[in-house]
Amino acid sequence: MVKLKDTILEADTLVTCNPSNKIVKNAAVFISNGIIQGVGTKKEINQNFSASKIIDGTNKILLPGLVNTHSHSVQTFLRGKADDYALLDWLKEVVLPGEARFTSEEVYYSSLLGFAEMVRTGTTTTNDMLTTHDSIAGIQAAEEIGIRARIGKMLMDYNDDFSEIVREDTETVIEGARKQINEYHQTHNGRIKYSLNARFLLSCSPELMKLIVETRDEYEDLMIHSHASESQAECDAVVKMYGASYFRSLKKLNALGPETILAHGIWLDDEEYEIVKQTNTRITHNPSSNCKLASGICDVLRYHSIGVIVGIGTDGPPCNNNFDMFHDMRLAAFLQKVKHLDELALPAEKVLKMATIEGAQALNWENEIGSIEVGKKADLIMVDSNDVNSFPFYNPVSHLIYSASGKDVSMTMIDGKIVYQDGSFPTIDIEKIKKAAEKYQNKME
Amino acid sequence: MVKLKDTILEADTLVTCNPSNKIVKNAAVFISNGIIQGVGTKKEINQNFSASKIIDGTNKILLPGLVNTHSHSVQTFLRGKADDYALLDWLKEVVLPGEARFTSEEVYYSSLLGFAEMVRTGTTTTNDMLTTHDSIAGIQAAEEIGIRARIGKMLMDYNDDFSEIVREDTETVIEGARKQINEYHQTHNGRIKYSLNARFLLSCSPELMKLIVETRDEYEDLMIHSHASESQAECDAVVKMYGASYFRSLKKLNALGPETILAHGIWLDDEEYEIVKQTNTRITHNPSSNCKLASGICDVLRYHSIGVIVGIGTDGPPCNNNFDMFHDMRLAAFLQKVKHLDELALPAEKVLKMATIEGAQALNWENEIGSIEVGKKADLIMVDSNDVNSFPFYNPVSHLIYSASGKDVSMTMIDGKIVYQDGSFPTIDIEKIKKAAEKYQNKME
Repeated sequence: MVKLKDTILEADTLVTCNPSNKIVKNAAVFISNGIIQGVGTKKEINQNFSASKIIDGTNKILLPGLVNTHSHSVQTFLRGKADDYALLDWLKEVVLPGEARFTSEEVYYSSLLGFAEMVRTGTTTTNDMLTTHDSIAGIQAAEEIGIRARIGKMLMDYNDDFSEIVREDTETVIEGARKQINEYHQTHNGRIKYSLNARFLLSCSPELMKLIVETRDEYEDLMIHSHASESQAECDAVVKMYGASYFRSLKKLNALGPETILAHGIWLDDEEYEIVKQTNTRITHNPSSNCKLASGICDVLRYHSIGVIVGIGTDGPPCNNNFDMFHDMRLAAFLQKVKHLDELALPAEKVLKMATIEGAQALNWENEIGSIEVGKKADLIMVDSNDVNSFPFYNPVSHLIYSASGKDVSMTMIDGKIVYQDGSFPTIDIEKIKKAAEKYQNKME
Repeated sequence: MVKLKDTILEADTLVTCNPSNKIVKNAAVFISNGIIQGVGTKKEINQNFSASKIIDGTNKILLPGLVNTHSHSVQTFLRGKADDYALLDWLKEVVLPGEARFTSEEVYYSSLLGFAEMVRTGTTTTNDMLTTHDSIAGIQAAEEIGIRARIGKMLMDYNDDFSEIVREDTETVIEGARKQINEYHQTHNGRIKYSLNARFLLSCSPELMKLIVETRDEYEDLMIHSHASESQAECDAVVKMYGASYFRSLKKLNALGPETILAHGIWLDDEEYEIVKQTNTRITHNPSSNCKLASGICDVLRYHSIGVIVGIGTDGPPCNNNFDMFHDMRLAAFLQKVKHLDELALPAEKVLKMATIEGAQALNWENEIGSIEVGKKADLIMVDSNDVNSFPFYNPVSHLIYSASGKDVSMTMIDGKIVYQDGSFPTIDIEKIKKAAEKYQNKME
């Protein structure tokens, strides 16, 4: 690991993403021991701090690392294996068997490849669901590359049509989770936090949900991460199994609240929106996934109008097919505009906040990350602004949301450590990972 | 210009985009004098042809250049100047005044920057609308960079709320167009074809439309390119001005047919769809623009079900904000799936055809371009497949549509000439263009 001390990062343009969304030209940030100690113009920073290393920021935009609020890194080896597939076939024929059959080594490399793509495209924090089995290999991948994550094994015990090959017994599930909490939660200087990944109500028994909620409430800063109301067919099935609609069922289980984050949240009735609001539950909007799986368009504006905190997630590569948050930021803005036939819906400024400070809020991490402010962790990215799509350059936020690509990211730093720079991944052996992906591909073909 | 003779292009994977959509592994293409002379495996090509130059294709996908069926290259200097704006304000306050006030030099550099972005992201052919004034500078930009284009001045004479600052007298409009047809149509070995760019019915008088239709019918291979049925408000205004709905009015004017291509085509009634079908009119779907301007989602599936040929366009940078066709291919697939709540809608294979061979058909250019076949023009692109989002790699078409980015394009060749390669633009001075963009930006700020 390249651990930097006392570093100045310079940039032509700095976007802070703090509440006032201050933009600084000819800017610099001073970091020490992984913490942001100074933010200002180059002149101000050079007057007040001296650093052993300066990172040049010519033709660069410096902004906080992006926060991906819903990912399945372990599905990366299934990228492109299930396109243009009906949802239930997709789950039954490709995704669940794929996850079930991964060896421990495949879990490790598939997750690591996913994390590599995240840092290469500017994501510094993710909220990640692994597999039921061999999930430790996925946590180790996150530890090694240096990504910040809420992460944990997949929890599912219910013997429905889909889960047989990947589910575990209720006791095995919860014991496995508790063991991992004790080993991994709040480790690596707080960079790794454990996550209670209840897959979705259709693969979790009421007994398991009760145990998951108890576990969440027992530990400090532990969140439940699940899917909810993704498709109409799924919502109907939940009513059949639980006797009430998705959010009513979750409420009855005490599963909602600010320490619960739910992916998708598309098919709600009026009372269910009210339940989300009253419980202060967090939502992660996953625009690419919702389009590719034809789930529907999440009403982000409605959530915002009632004060619900909404992050942006990529979901997994079988339904996206990449981890580039720039794609999902742009698509989030586009979908709200076309859904509401309102050009002013979800402007660029708001989308960038959703992918930074509000994503951090969605994960209860806003005191440490999500903006460039003194005292916060040095989770920072540099975006190149010298390619043809960067001219002219009237407004950095417009550029980042509507014109830039994750491929423009030139440097990604997490906790003060560089994890990606100009094609290199200093913390991992990227060629070894690519070879592992090819090996898996050959096995599957 | 780097004119290559007798060249072999190699590639790990070749996607032909011909009707059978053949995919060749360890492939090569032999070109001579700008024409594809051989397509096959490396072994087959090396046995049958000898070349003075071989372009290495390790970790590359070779496919036909993309066809952008609707662009406004001249608006590139306005990129990011009009985001999150209501449509009418957008047109009145930013786009039309911007176009009106461009100097000839600005028309040249703004168009050239747009074309540069197109070739950098894999577009080899575009269907482009310039300004009313100084449009020759835009045509010269296309000539110089070497892009293939249907292109011409903007035709508009009607004194409505929007057009006053850019319109011309009816006679001036049509004389200007005829002069440009005689000078530019079917020049540069057929690479530049003139286009009759009637802006939209709201800025064209019935007299002008009549003259435009007469002109189209007088010349060989000349197309009308216009906008139609983009927003509900615009459709209402057309009924007021022309006394009938958009497509009924166009039909009455004899403006429809296979030599007419219309952008957007969103708000049609059943009879209007029938009119498009009966007249064999071409439609260009512009998904980013339709989202960003909150126009609505074009029903591409419905057009396909009645046999209408539909291309994909980027539209202009104030409403996109880039010329990366990879964005628009992905979004085209996504929008149909979510509009129809059908995961199988518009699969990757079909989208890639829309952006290549069917885009060529939409522009009546399918005999020369749009697929990799012996006898066709050497309009070819190479897409790098060695970045982290390219692993695993089960299916090149899935990869191109759902995972790749225009930033992955490593080489663009038009008419056998390389116009972009690994960051370089051999036919133009890219630094000079960037400086011109900065100069315009400084003037506007």
